[in-house]
Amino acid sequence: MTIRSPLAPAAFPDLPEIAGVTRRVARARYKDWDRCDLTYIELTPGTTVAGVFTRNICCSSEVELGREQVRRGTARALIVNAGNSNAFTGYRGRTAVEAIMAQVADHLGCAAGDVFVSSTGVIGVPLPKDKARAGVAAALTAKPCSWEVAAETIGTTDTFAKGAAASAIVGGRTVHVAGIAKGSGMIAPDMATMLGYIFTDAAVAPALLQEMLREAAGGTFNAITVDSDTSTSDTVLLFATGQAGHAPLAARDDPGADALYAAIRQVALDLAHQVVRDGEGASKFIEVQVTRAVSDDSAKRVALAIANSPLVKTAIAGEDANWGRVVMAVGKAGEPADRDRLAIRFGDHWVAKDGLAVDGYDEAPVAAHLKGRDIRIGADLGLGEGRATVWTCDLTHGYISINADYRS
Amino acid sequence: MTIRSPLAPAAFPDLPEIAGVTRRVARARYKDWDRCDLTYIELTPGTTVAGVFTRNICCSSEVELGREQVRRGTARALIVNAGNSNAFTGYRGRTAVEAIMAQVADHLGCAAGDVFVSSTGVIGVPLPKDKARAGVAAALTAKPCSWEVAAETIGTTDTFAKGAAASAIVGGRTVHVAGIAKGSGMIAPDMATMLGYIFTDAAVAPALLQEMLREAAGGTFNAITVDSDTSTSDTVLLFATGQAGHAPLAARDDPGADALYAAIRQVALDLAHQVVRDGEGASKFIEVQVTRAVSDDSAKRVALAIANSPLVKTAIAGEDANWGRVVMAVGKAGEPADRDRLAIRFGDHWVAKDGLAVDGYDEAPVAAHLKGRDIRIGADLGLGEGRATVWTCDLTHGYISINADYRS
Repeated sequence: MTIRSPLAPAAFPDLPEIAGVTRRVARARYKDWDRCDLTYIELTPGTTVAGVFTRNICCSSEVELGREQVRRGTARALIVNAGNSNAFTGYRGRTAVEAIMAQVADHLGCAAGDVFVSSTGVIGVPLPKDKARAGVAAALTAKPCSWEVAAETIGTTDTFAKGAAASAIVGGRTVHVAGIAKGSGMIAPDMATMLGYIFTDAAVAPALLQEMLREAAGGTFNAITVDSDTSTSDTVLLFATGQAGHAPLAARDDPGADALYAAIRQVALDLAHQVVRDGEGASKFIEVQVTRAVSDDSAKRVALAIANSPLVKTAIAGEDANWGRVVMAVGKAGEPADRDRLAIRFGDHWVAKDGLAVDGYDEAPVAAHLKGRDIRIGADLGLGEGRATVWTCDLTHGYISINADYRS
Repeated sequence: MTIRSPLAPAAFPDLPEIAGVTRRVARARYKDWDRCDLTYIELTPGTTVAGVFTRNICCSSEVELGREQVRRGTARALIVNAGNSNAFTGYRGRTAVEAIMAQVADHLGCAAGDVFVSSTGVIGVPLPKDKARAGVAAALTAKPCSWEVAAETIGTTDTFAKGAAASAIVGGRTVHVAGIAKGSGMIAPDMATMLGYIFTDAAVAPALLQEMLREAAGGTFNAITVDSDTSTSDTVLLFATGQAGHAPLAARDDPGADALYAAIRQVALDLAHQVVRDGEGASKFIEVQVTRAVSDDSAKRVALAIANSPLVKTAIAGEDANWGRVVMAVGKAGEPADRDRLAIRFGDHWVAKDGLAVDGYDEAPVAAHLKGRDIRIGADLGLGEGRATVWTCDLTHGYISINADYRS
C-alpha cells in the first residue's frame, strides 16, 4: 500500500468473530507482486445472502453472475481476486469465474451458485485460469486469518485496510455484524472499484436480508462519490450465518429486526465513509446535506450535484468559502429549486439566505471551519420536507497525479 | 490575460464588418483593474434577435430578463459587463440591470426591452450602479472599436480573444456572419461563464432566427463541456440587422435560409471550439464521437458521460490509452448499451471490439495519436442509427491550480 491517506482512521478496528465465517488468504500472483491477492471466506451451511451491485451497464461477469446468485438466497463461500477486474473480457472472463465457482463447490460439496466471486484490478485482461486455480487451491487449505489480513488482501490501491463492526440484541441474543471493504483507489491501468462484504451471525430470511441491504445501501454506499465515475464491478454482499441462536427473522416487523437493521446500516455507513476517506488525493472529508427539497430523492440528486461538482471540490481543496459554486451546483441539478429561497452554509455558518449573501457576513468562522479536515456543506432549498446527506472528498493535485501522471 | 492557452489559434481572425453593428468599449472599473470591462454594441433599428440561455435554475437577472426580451424579437443594443456576474444578488441585482437598460434606451430613444445586458465575473455582489452608470455613459460616446477589442473586453479569465466569421449567399447577396465569445475561465472567486454573440446583416424574422439558433446551439455551444459544471449566466445571442438588402427570410424553406443557417452554425461551432481550447488547464482538445446508439439524444448523453468523466479526462492528460475508462463511462451513462457489442477507438485505431480488446492490438499508433494535441475518441454502440459528437479538454494539474490553489 502507498502513503496512508491523511483522512484514514488511526488503526484498524477490533472486529468480533462471526460464528460460521472463516477467512483464508493466498498468493495467486495476478500481478507481479509479492503479496496475498486472493481471499477465501467460507460460510457455514444455511448462510443466507443479499447483494447490491453497480448499475454500470458494462459490468463484469462477476457482477452478472452475482445478481443471479443472490436470487437463490444462499451462500457457502466468497472468493475475492485483487489485481485483475476481469471486466470487458467476454466469454473467457465468464468461464474463468465459473471455473473458480466449480473448484470451490467441489471442495465444499455445495452448489456452484453458492460460491460468490469478485474481482478488481486491471480491466480487459481475462482472469488467468491457471493462476486462479493454484491460488484457490492454496487458499482452501491455508490457515485461517484475521479480519485485518482479509481486509488488506481484498485491497488494490487502497492506502489503508477498512473494517467496521456493530452489534444488536435479537430475541434476547447478542448478534454481531462485521464488515470489510475496499476502494476507492485507481491507478494505471486499473479500474477503481468499491467492494463491501458484511457478515452477521443473525438468522435472516433472504428476502428480508435483501430488503435490509437495499435500504441500508441507499443512504450509505449509494450516497458516496469520489469522482462521479461508476465502476464496472461495484459489489456489496451481506451474509447471515444464522449461528446466533435466535428464531429466524422473516419480516421487517419481527421483534429485533429494527435493531439488526440499525447495526447493519451503521457498519455500511462506517465502511462507506472509509472508502471516501481513501478517495484518491483526498485531503478533506466532505458531508453535503440538502434540506427542504421537494422530496428525499430530489434532495439526493441536488446533494450529488454539489458533491460531484469539480468546482465545489476544488474550492474546498483551496479552503475557499466560494458559496457561489454551491449555488451553481444546486441550479444545475435539474431539480426544483428557487434561487430566492436558497440558503447555503459551511459548517454551522450560514453564508447566504433568501438568494443573497447574508447581511454582515463574517467570513472568519467560515474560514476556520474550512481549514479543518471534516467539512460540512448545507443547502436549504426552502421548498418542502425532502432531505438527503451524501459524502465526498475534495479534488486535489493528488487526484491528477494518481490518474494522469504516468504513461502506460 | 494570463498565459495564452497552448490550444489557442495563432491569431485573432479577420472578421468582416456587419452593416448596422457598431462596437464601443469603456472602463467601468468593476474590479480594481486598468482595462476596458464594459462593451456596448449598437444595433441598427429593425434588428431581430434570438437567444439561448443557461438551464441553471439559479440563473442571473440578466438571463431572466434576456429570456423575456428575446420573446419580443427586436434589439437595439447589447451591454456586456466583465468582472461582476451580478448573479445571486436578488432585487438589487435586477434593478441594476434595469437601470442600464433604461440609460441606453434613453440614449437611443428605443424601448428598454431592446437593450440586452450580460454580466460575468464575481457572484453574490450586486452590480455597482454608479460604476455601471459612468461606464455606460463613457461607452455611449466612445469611438467605435474593432471586433478584437470587443472580444477582449467581454473576456474575464480568458487567455485569448475569441472570434469567428462565415458568409453565405442569400437572394443573390453575400451576407456576413461574425461572432465573438468568452469562456471558460474561472478564478477566485469568480464564476465561469460562456457568453457568445453572433451578428449577421441578413434579414430574418425573429421566429426563424430563434429556430436557427436553437438548432445550431444543440451541436455546438450545447455540445461542449469543460468540467460538467453549468454557469448561472451562460448566454448566446444572435442578432440580424437586415442590412444585406435581400428579401427577409421568414421560413426555413425560404431560398437562402439553409445557406445562412450553415454560416451561423459554422461560426457557432468555431466559437464553441475556441471556448474548449481555452478550458482551464487544458493541454489537449478532445472530440468524442458516439455512433450507432439507439437515438441521437441517447448518443449525446453517452458522449457527454465520456467527455465529463474525470477518469477519461485524466487518462488523456496522461496520454494513456486507457480504453477501460471509456467503457466505464459508456456504462454509467444510463443509456441503452450492450457491453458485448461495444467498440472503442482512439483516433482511427480500434482498441476494443465486441466487448473485448482487439486481437493483436498494437498500441504504438494509438500512443502516437495520444501524444498529439487534438485527440479523438470514438465509441460505437452497435445498436442503432443514433450519433453525436461533443468536445471537451483534458483534466490537468492546471485545472486544480486555477480552481484550488488560492485562499480567498
